[in-house]
Amino acid sequence: MLELYTSETPNGWKVSILLEELGVPYKVHPISLTNQEQKTPAFLARNPNGKIPVLVDTEVEADTGGFAVFESGAILIYLAEKFGRFIPADVAGRSRALQWVTWQVAGLGPMMGQATVFNRYFPEKIPAVIERYTRESRRLLGVLNDQLADRAYLLGDDYSVADIASFPWVRGCEWANIDISDMPHLLRWRDAIAARPAVQRGLLIPTPPTPEEMAAKTTTQGKAILA
Amino acid sequence: MLELYTSETPNGWKVSILLEELGVPYKVHPISLTNQEQKTPAFLARNPNGKIPVLVDTEVEADTGGFAVFESGAILIYLAEKFGRFIPADVAGRSRALQWVTWQVAGLGPMMGQATVFNRYFPEKIPAVIERYTRESRRLLGVLNDQLADRAYLLGDDYSVADIASFPWVRGCEWANIDISDMPHLLRWRDAIAARPAVQRGLLIPTPPTPEEMAAKTTTQGKAILA
Repeated sequence: MLELYTSETPNGWKVSILLEELGVPYKVHPISLTNQEQKTPAFLARNPNGKIPVLVDTEVEADTGGFAVFESGAILIYLAEKFGRFIPADVAGRSRALQWVTWQVAGLGPMMGQATVFNRYFPEKIPAVIERYTRESRRLLGVLNDQLADRAYLLGDDYSVADIASFPWVRGCEWANIDISDMPHLLRWRDAIAARPAVQRGLLIPTPPTPEEMAAKTTTQGKAILA
Repeated sequence: MLELYTSETPNGWKVSILLEELGVPYKVHPISLTNQEQKTPAFLARNPNGKIPVLVDTEVEADTGGFAVFESGAILIYLAEKFGRFIPADVAGRSRALQWVTWQVAGLGPMMGQATVFNRYFPEKIPAVIERYTRESRRLLGVLNDQLADRAYLLGDDYSVADIASFPWVRGCEWANIDISDMPHLLRWRDAIAARPAVQRGLLIPTPPTPEEMAAKTTTQGKAILA
């Protein structure tokens, strides 16, 4: 059995989207960031970094309760290779998938994360810092837009974990106050992925929040980011 | 042949250290960040993100001039798997290596990068922002320290790409103005890796700078980071 410890965040949705695309059974354990459940001893035993998502594969290292995988990028690669789907099989194609997943977790995610913090949560509004992260996020989103100018998906004709890694972050541009209205290839790609039924299901994991819950949750999550 | 496009930075040194540990032949192409050589059309054709390091494996996809790999974390995995060294061979061990490499590129690198920018290069000194990134960097370094409390290396007894990913950043703590004097396991690990001859050779790639060059280079690199 696959067990997913997750919350309603872009990094959590990457994994729930891939699991829905794979169509494999999995059990969801919702983790409340508001209650700091990702910092409990039980959680830290699975991920010493204290962050969601974590995947536990109970079929591997079963004697210890299962094999825990942390870091959303590493989880995407683990699942794609376990099932042999959404990742090319040849050495170069597989590396290209890992390159774009790594690019997302090392660049787009951290920079859009900082843009969100300084736009929404930081106690002071500091224009020079907001500008720094907005500009770098837009540069990175522009790299995606250029890559998609002559390709349906990041690796070419086939939708892959490379797309799944970046999609929830691109979807969150408005929330991060980053304008991508001048990036037509990125918008076309975003809308194509958003139309996939598995993606729509994945975005409801762990729970579909009401608008009121969403507003409250993101505020407390913002405080948690700063804590 | 392996060709490495790189500069004197922690992300560049990860790859030169691994190549020296592997003891395989490779050709170094120094890239001047001062002169923005990482933004030229020739460089962008190999890495659309315009950042070092880039590895080109001329044995793969030779008809196009070779297979280009970008993102330091993806290069480490590519090389470790190509030569079957510095990464466990079993599924769980291999994933653990990828998890810690991903943790470094997604967490430690970006956060220490921001700490360095706001400590050294940003036009304004903003105490609340410096404090944010110093605190998060120290939290992440503490995760490493805890992981190393009962292990020689991050994955256990064996030195691996997981260690090589984090070492150049831990080595740069002083430069980033981050105190790790209260982290004995991390210091022991750092010193053990620093003593390896291959690591010492890797840190001289692409060129061993004089102290004066180092001071000038880091200042202009800082400006390049902000550009």
